[in-house]
Amino acid sequence: MAAPGRTAADLAERLLAGDKRALARAITLVENDDPEGWDLVREVYPHTGRAAMVGFTGPPGVGKSTLIGALTAHARKADREVAVLSIDPSSPFTKGALLGDRIRLTEHFLDAGVFIRSMATRGSLGGLSEATLQAALLMDASGRDDIFLETVGIGQAEVDIIDHADTVVLVLMPGAGDSIQALKAGVMEIPDVIVVNKSDHPLTDTMIREIRGVLSLGPQEGWQVPLVRAEASRGEGIEELSERIAAHRAHIEEEGTLSERRRRNLMNEVVALAANRLRRRLEESIREDEGVQELLDEVVARRLDPATAATRLLELQP
Amino acid sequence: MAAPGRTAADLAERLLAGDKRALARAITLVENDDPEGWDLVREVYPHTGRAAMVGFTGPPGVGKSTLIGALTAHARKADREVAVLSIDPSSPFTKGALLGDRIRLTEHFLDAGVFIRSMATRGSLGGLSEATLQAALLMDASGRDDIFLETVGIGQAEVDIIDHADTVVLVLMPGAGDSIQALKAGVMEIPDVIVVNKSDHPLTDTMIREIRGVLSLGPQEGWQVPLVRAEASRGEGIEELSERIAAHRAHIEEEGTLSERRRRNLMNEVVALAANRLRRRLEESIREDEGVQELLDEVVARRLDPATAATRLLELQP
Repeated sequence: MAAPGRTAADLAERLLAGDKRALARAITLVENDDPEGWDLVREVYPHTGRAAMVGFTGPPGVGKSTLIGALTAHARKADREVAVLSIDPSSPFTKGALLGDRIRLTEHFLDAGVFIRSMATRGSLGGLSEATLQAALLMDASGRDDIFLETVGIGQAEVDIIDHADTVVLVLMPGAGDSIQALKAGVMEIPDVIVVNKSDHPLTDTMIREIRGVLSLGPQEGWQVPLVRAEASRGEGIEELSERIAAHRAHIEEEGTLSERRRRNLMNEVVALAANRLRRRLEESIREDEGVQELLDEVVARRLDPATAATRLLELQP
Repeated sequence: MAAPGRTAADLAERLLAGDKRALARAITLVENDDPEGWDLVREVYPHTGRAAMVGFTGPPGVGKSTLIGALTAHARKADREVAVLSIDPSSPFTKGALLGDRIRLTEHFLDAGVFIRSMATRGSLGGLSEATLQAALLMDASGRDDIFLETVGIGQAEVDIIDHADTVVLVLMPGAGDSIQALKAGVMEIPDVIVVNKSDHPLTDTMIREIRGVLSLGPQEGWQVPLVRAEASRGEGIEELSERIAAHRAHIEEEGTLSERRRRNLMNEVVALAANRLRRRLEESIREDEGVQELLDEVVARRLDPATAATRLLELQP
């Protein structure tokens, strides 16, 4: 028997009451793929859906963490409770050294109203994506008002992680031309809010013009993507950014698209969870099953093509 | 009955003989997910494995297409037959307008020794990735000496496409700082060869130093990633790049890692093909099955958590 105070029901109760240690413990359980973690999420799930989930994406080095740090300070002034979930391998939340933001963050680590957690990204993106969703749900259930999800990327890799967010903020900096190209090319989805951070850079105006050019090609009805200049390390632009994020949320609530978006996100998540499990079963069968090994030898010997091998692999599944 | 000259066997024969029109037709079949296309790949698969597959990745706008155009011209001088497969939505191979390289490419379009094909990238990445593999195999079977695969991305999205390549070339340009950050942060895998294109830019030396800094953190044994300066629009650096790519291939052949790499690539491909099919079945069941719809309604109503819904979804599968 588990010792009193350590049972799942007790952990759920403490988590729902907003206990940070219970939240930390719960996230570790889902991160370790512990069945107790999954039970816990099941138990607290009815209490989710209240937090504002804001996703931050953008190339490494643009200052996402500094920006989130400043937004967190801003939210705290309004007495909002915040959780930050970071899956950017270059983020100081995750690894530390790159940006030198540690002091700003350490400050928040000591604040009971702020919960910060990072997750490792190497290895299976599928597994990470699952754990991230579960962690975000646990944060939501613990009564946080704002959940800031930080991820990295230009391209499509970050999509399922950002899919948990009600509002997606793209963070850029002057000179991050790759991102403008990616937006232009349609490689990257148009976000809900765009911030140009480090805006004391001389190329800021050029960058802003370029982004406006890209946005002018988009729909001229409905939500118009705001473009915010920020210098997060000095707290500049944070008030405006915070207002824009709140305005986007108000917009999707009024329009009814918040619930649509969440329905779509949840559907994607269920499919992704199921598909990842199927994929993992396949990978296990490849490691363990001799018949599957022989199948692969045939492919390598160019006697059996990959598509036919895939069909046989599926037939071999129990 | 199919008209004479249009049967699958005939198409395979013409494809194996190097007929460009047969190759184009075959790729259209796999792109359209036509069963005849899959049959064809199965039939010609034993004739694959001879071509040198070189993958080019890097952010949009760095000049990958110009570089590939110049490498193609170089390979043609050595009487090598070339196929180019592009899955970069911003590439002039795919969409045209962005970089203004059309003249250079049109030149190659008229050369019987060069086959150029682009594939659309929007929508399902899984499906695209499958079709890309099949197309690359068809090009290989048609007797091309060099197959250049062009893709876009910083991050992990491009991974399965690049996974078909024996040699991966990362193309950067001065000022593409996002990419250096991504390399540093470990978001992007270290490639086999790095090119800094548009190297007449004043920031080239800074960029080269930064890349050397990142590479110096890597393994100091085995293959040492060469760093090539190029100005592809003027043909500068193309000779050297071509030599470096050939040197990498010679290295992995000598070491025996070419066959290892191909084995791993083929294994990943078989798993990916099977996993994509399973995922598609799941998505179909979601669109069509009422029981599944009810399951999702429960999730949206926060009565059933996503992970449990995923388990039930899998149980509902026939």
